[in-house]
Amino acid sequence: MNREALKEATRSQMPERRWQHVLGVIETAVELADRFGGDRDKAWLAALLHDYTKAWPIEKMERIIREQGLPAELLEHDKELWHAHVGAWVVRQEHGIDDEEVLDAIRYHTSGRERMTKLDKIVCLADYMEPSREYPGVERIRELAKTNLDEALVAGFDSTITFLLSKGKVIFPLTVLSRNDLIRGIRENERASLA
Amino acid sequence: MNREALKEATRSQMPERRWQHVLGVIETAVELADRFGGDRDKAWLAALLHDYTKAWPIEKMERIIREQGLPAELLEHDKELWHAHVGAWVVRQEHGIDDEEVLDAIRYHTSGRERMTKLDKIVCLADYMEPSREYPGVERIRELAKTNLDEALVAGFDSTITFLLSKGKVIFPLTVLSRNDLIRGIRENERASLA
Repeated sequence: MNREALKEATRSQMPERRWQHVLGVIETAVELADRFGGDRDKAWLAALLHDYTKAWPIEKMERIIREQGLPAELLEHDKELWHAHVGAWVVRQEHGIDDEEVLDAIRYHTSGRERMTKLDKIVCLADYMEPSREYPGVERIRELAKTNLDEALVAGFDSTITFLLSKGKVIFPLTVLSRNDLIRGIRENERASLA
Repeated sequence: MNREALKEATRSQMPERRWQHVLGVIETAVELADRFGGDRDKAWLAALLHDYTKAWPIEKMERIIREQGLPAELLEHDKELWHAHVGAWVVRQEHGIDDEEVLDAIRYHTSGRERMTKLDKIVCLADYMEPSREYPGVERIRELAKTNLDEALVAGFDSTITFLLSKGKVIFPLTVLSRNDLIRGIRENERASLA
């Protein structure tokens, strides 16, 4: 399937407003890939597909999680997280996407994970800061993203955790593990550059 | 060993300012036990001993963690967390404290854990709100503690996580799991009371 057909197939999964967000993530992810030495084709593909099932009915996603053996833990957490894992499964089935790096970037674009790849970081950060995003802290994330992928992503996770705290909602443990892992990596780099 | 001797032994482990904090935690923990139907004798004992090794040298605590098989994961996290596990180990060795409920309340008073016991909650919350504590949000914790042990403790964990976010520090995963678990319990109680 060529790129234009894949774009149309993706666009047909979601309302126009969500599609405009996806276009913003594609644009930002490709920019970040160029800036930080990532693979711009993989960034384009993962960004295009990252929200493939975001607008699907909850019941349909729940059925896929249960029947296809996706992590059962997902069902205990916020439904916002389901579409990332379900989306990775669906784009493999429907479009034969089999690049594990791309599938992982889709799968972990909401929560992050420990030892994120550069592609994971690019897609996750692009989702936080694409041009149409507006929320407290987004300008700081965009500013950090000019020079430091990891620090920008920590600021992104900070904004998620702060939001969940303010709403009295549970925090996905993987987001905390991701953030801790990034902070440790930043510290190690600082130590290495001083040594 | 009688209570007065145990108090003196504990006092001798720490500077006066820390001891005043311990007295505040004892007073508050016993109050909370009376308010929420906890065991006031166990609350007294766990509160007395909760910071037993807090002022010990870091190297001494690290040696105990390594040599006595305490969770190695501790060493990767903030040193603030070490004294809780080390303290539980030391008071068993030095004073023969063998009540597992009391030892657990000491062990988890900083991080919390999933499925906290009432005693865990009482000691942890008393530590957050004893009279000499002053930090953003402590008044809200004290207000909630007048009627709801779990909601007050969530507010306590919120204050810890907010502080760590503001400092760019790693967050102990167990604190997030504890908070998530408490929030789920609160929601279940709400649903049960509506049914």
